[in-house]
Amino acid sequence: MTTVRCDMTTSLDGFVCGPAALGPPYVDDGFHRVTRWITEVFSWRERHGQAGGTKSADDEIAAEMVDGAGAYVMGRRMFDSGEEPWGDTPPFRAPVFVVTHREREPLHRNGGTTFYFVTEGVRAAIDRAKVTAGDRDVHVSGGADIVTQAVSDGLVDDLHLHVAPVLLGGGTRLFDGLRPGIVELAKVRVVDSAQVTHLSYRFSRGMR
Amino acid sequence: MTTVRCDMTTSLDGFVCGPAALGPPYVDDGFHRVTRWITEVFSWRERHGQAGGTKSADDEIAAEMVDGAGAYVMGRRMFDSGEEPWGDTPPFRAPVFVVTHREREPLHRNGGTTFYFVTEGVRAAIDRAKVTAGDRDVHVSGGADIVTQAVSDGLVDDLHLHVAPVLLGGGTRLFDGLRPGIVELAKVRVVDSAQVTHLSYRFSRGMR
Repeated sequence: MTTVRCDMTTSLDGFVCGPAALGPPYVDDGFHRVTRWITEVFSWRERHGQAGGTKSADDEIAAEMVDGAGAYVMGRRMFDSGEEPWGDTPPFRAPVFVVTHREREPLHRNGGTTFYFVTEGVRAAIDRAKVTAGDRDVHVSGGADIVTQAVSDGLVDDLHLHVAPVLLGGGTRLFDGLRPGIVELAKVRVVDSAQVTHLSYRFSRGMR
Repeated sequence: MTTVRCDMTTSLDGFVCGPAALGPPYVDDGFHRVTRWITEVFSWRERHGQAGGTKSADDEIAAEMVDGAGAYVMGRRMFDSGEEPWGDTPPFRAPVFVVTHREREPLHRNGGTTFYFVTEGVRAAIDRAKVTAGDRDVHVSGGADIVTQAVSDGLVDDLHLHVAPVLLGGGTRLFDGLRPGIVELAKVRVVDSAQVTHLSYRFSRGMR
């Protein structure tokens, strides 16, 4: 069965980026600071066509993320932000379903990545990604709003939070506008590394 | 030298209590859920005059908290919320400096607890607590607003976040209104337990 997972890196105060990332290109110093752990590891760099990188606990986590992914779901702003830097050979090597309000023909790239534009919302995008992923995982990659919607709607199985030891004091919060109510998760794994702490949880299907 | 520490338990989405705790008595199901780990351990129960309790990694963390404390600082709402349940023999066994806008004579209780009411703000309360604590720790106990103020003003040395595997989707957020800016912390320790994950950080003095 396909597992729907989210991997989000946040600051200690729950932000995925700082206040300067509220407009295009949706990245800023705060974003670069919290995501630094992954941009420094071997497997991420290899996927992005960059040489070098560390082999560490962080690298193993990053490798697990990309190796298991059969399809991706992301928001339109994340796509807009990434389209140019990802270039002709994006790091996904799998179908990517972009949740957007704007119809658009699929965008085929090298290396196995095709972007499909889904105008029926995050649930429809995840459903289409599941069909494509087969037995592999569906990754809801972000941004924060898409992940929050997917969690609110009970569409996520596994939540992986990578917590950077930094406070931002502003920006875009993960889980801002999450549906209220006490939702229990099962803690699956905690991996500590020099850069971040990796917290993995599973939603209890019955409790959503 | 006295260390100023904060111990806060939050949900995965950063709330210390749910939305029903916004008014007196400032506790609700969300608060009880996130703090359940500590109310079940031996050392906390012993301090609160309750029998039983587990002896576990969580208990060791709780014991370390209370054993090291030479003085406490808290907000007025936390005091109001606790005054009655804490009773004649509050769990602190040390001076407690309550940050409030209302002048009030010190309130002496059994077992070594005296509540002093400080109208000059959180910095003044921490300064007075430091003098009293000697070589022991000053605990900024809460609520969320006092801790956020103390962190914003660079008054905290050690931050201990106890993260419960639960989402609340609303309530009082720790670090709401924190001063914006990238603040680096050094990760000191991660202790995982069945109930929560204990994340300990130290502020770099030069970076605040």
